[in-house]
Amino acid sequence: ALSKLPNTGTTIFSQMSELATHHNAINLSQGFPDFDGPSCLLKRVDHYIKQGNNQYAPMIGIASLRQGINAKLQRCYDFQADPDSQITITSGATEALFVTISALVHVGDEVIVFDPAYDSYDPAIRLSGGCPIHVPLLPPNFEMDWDRIRNAVTSKTRMIIINSPHNPTCQTLTSRDLNELYELAEKHDLLVLSDEVYEHIVFDGQAHQSVLRHKALAERSVVVSSFGKTYHTTGWKIGYCIAPSHLMAEIRKVHQYVTFSVSTPMQYAIADFLQETPEHDQQLPAFYQRKRDHFNRAMSSSRFEFTATSGTYFQLMNYRAIQDTTDTEFALWLIEHAGVAAIPISVFYQTPPTDMRLIRFCFAKQDARSTAQPRNW
Amino acid sequence: ALSKLPNTGTTIFSQMSELATHHNAINLSQGFPDFDGPSCLLKRVDHYIKQGNNQYAPMIGIASLRQGINAKLQRCYDFQADPDSQITITSGATEALFVTISALVHVGDEVIVFDPAYDSYDPAIRLSGGCPIHVPLLPPNFEMDWDRIRNAVTSKTRMIIINSPHNPTCQTLTSRDLNELYELAEKHDLLVLSDEVYEHIVFDGQAHQSVLRHKALAERSVVVSSFGKTYHTTGWKIGYCIAPSHLMAEIRKVHQYVTFSVSTPMQYAIADFLQETPEHDQQLPAFYQRKRDHFNRAMSSSRFEFTATSGTYFQLMNYRAIQDTTDTEFALWLIEHAGVAAIPISVFYQTPPTDMRLIRFCFAKQDARSTAQPRNW
Ligand SMILES: CSCCC(=O)C(=O)O
Ligand SMILES: CSCCC(=O)C(=O)O
Repeated sequence: ALSKLPNTGTTIFSQMSELATHHNAINLSQGFPDFDGPSCLLKRVDHYIKQGNNQYAPMIGIASLRQGINAKLQRCYDFQADPDSQITITSGATEALFVTISALVHVGDEVIVFDPAYDSYDPAIRLSGGCPIHVPLLPPNFEMDWDRIRNAVTSKTRMIIINSPHNPTCQTLTSRDLNELYELAEKHDLLVLSDEVYEHIVFDGQAHQSVLRHKALAERSVVVSSFGKTYHTTGWKIGYCIAPSHLMAEIRKVHQYVTFSVSTPMQYAIADFLQETPEHDQQLPAFYQRKRDHFNRAMSSSRFEFTATSGTYFQLMNYRAIQDTTDTEFALWLIEHAGVAAIPISVFYQTPPTDMRLIRFCFAKQDARSTAQPRNW
Repeated sequence: ALSKLPNTGTTIFSQMSELATHHNAINLSQGFPDFDGPSCLLKRVDHYIKQGNNQYAPMIGIASLRQGINAKLQRCYDFQADPDSQITITSGATEALFVTISALVHVGDEVIVFDPAYDSYDPAIRLSGGCPIHVPLLPPNFEMDWDRIRNAVTSKTRMIIINSPHNPTCQTLTSRDLNELYELAEKHDLLVLSDEVYEHIVFDGQAHQSVLRHKALAERSVVVSSFGKTYHTTGWKIGYCIAPSHLMAEIRKVHQYVTFSVSTPMQYAIADFLQETPEHDQQLPAFYQRKRDHFNRAMSSSRFEFTATSGTYFQLMNYRAIQDTTDTEFALWLIEHAGVAAIPISVFYQTPPTDMRLIRFCFAKQDARSTAQPRNW
């Protein structure tokens, strides 16, 4: 029988992390920190395990975590949700994205996604029988071109998926973008899926432009985030989504049959930390901005040229002065010859610009690691 | 916009557990133990968290856990898998079931499921554009009627979903059933999805008839199981599936975009326990058989009549002598008036037999709990 995803291979993150291990390379490819979250968070899991919190959590997530998220939304975005009907805990942002698309995209629907985009959107849309319509974000600035976006809308368009801070371009939305988005969504009755997993990793004094800041836009939006990036616990797989009740009811119908519920003791541990340590999120921009600047300073003596990172813990580097090959070839060369793994960003494109010479590095690493001297450099 | 699952409400497990809390009832509805797993397992999570195993696990699961599962399959079912290409760790058996159906069922495919069946199969099939074809299992014995099953096969049939020990009928497959299944699957080139989460909870000296015991059948089968039921950790959400490599390649394409990976420290903890304590599984039948018998002895002085439980940690009870109402009405009455929550099994049916008077109790409880005196009895 034929594959339902004939053009899909193994995700680039698995491929690159495996190659990094194989070649004993410094792994700056897949996005995860090589340091741990706060020890008071780490210790709390054991507390809840010992207290016997080891059976199914409620399908929608434990109440204290949903309430804590709500308090955070008020604090950060002046947004008030109903935790009982508008917030659901999921197995990472990945599951939140999947169940949202699966619940809301019908056969034949068109979904506007950017080109490049995170690699899970497309397969999720296709498995729902929808059709992704890619609108290019062009280097060097990767700005949203609202004329192009408006032109991509048809009578079949059901949803637009945005992502800010954006992976892999490292750019962020402006409040002007939110207004443009709102007008377009309102005019054509579109749903918005907003992937905001890097919400607390924005630089140079910006405020994250969450869709939740725009109250009218939020009424037709599903916002996805996760604790993995914010608490340095990507392997705990605790994410969540926020949506108006009538959309959330549909999302939960799917979530209950995709994973049912999420690790109970980890939900409790995160709920405590979220309530007790709101300052963690506030300190994250400075924490990662220092790492960004440290990495870029170290790379300034190399022949890489960098594109400004406005958010996320990634840095795009132009390698044209080093080699004039495709980014995939360059990434393989880099692993084998320099002992450094990075992500070729063409994998995030449906139609990669042919002359693009960009590679993505993750700087969520201990300082010595991200700037270790590459082999044979 | 219309719902993609218009006939789906909130899963009965959430509904009943919530009602149990609301009415302060003894919760014998949703299937989970009210006791903990072995303390050496529980402690191990903290060890791995402290060691810094808090970032993404490999998409397919950590190697030692996949190898441990393989060793178990050899020990229990004389089956040898390739852990690298044939075993994947998932967010509970629920995710394993969902991604298998999502990866292998195409639009227009028919899937044979029994009536009753676990409640997640149908929505997963429908979200894939497939059509569930229900074949009745009739009380009192709920045996598989192979003539009826054969008659249900058409040129569109792609898959048959079996479940043994079976939830909610508490019956188990025989080796004769496996042979019948093999002949049918071979003749019509069907895939088999075998939900075996209660594999270690079988009674009265039986051996669990895993599909993996039948080597030729295993070549066209996906087997799903979980550590939740076996290790008393339903809230940890660590499940897995086993499939021939060509099917697993498709399943992983979906899994990587549904959840990507599963809790890293919990995978390590379970891998250790699995390797160090194979006797845990062997002791489970006696452990739960004692609970089954304890529960049934206590109920023998009530007006409930019990149907033999051959496997699972559930007991079906006929309540006709108490009330002649539907099982949903009886379940609500039971919560409100007797302070006991149970599951009305009609929710697992597409076409429930009209005169069926059965209700499901979970006996995975501390002895005093499952047989506590109901209020106003
Ligand atoms: C789910 S692994 C991918 C991590 C990540 O978000 C990235 O590297 O872009
Ligand atoms: C995922 S909650 C359901 C638990 C269970 O298997 C049951 O009660 O039947």
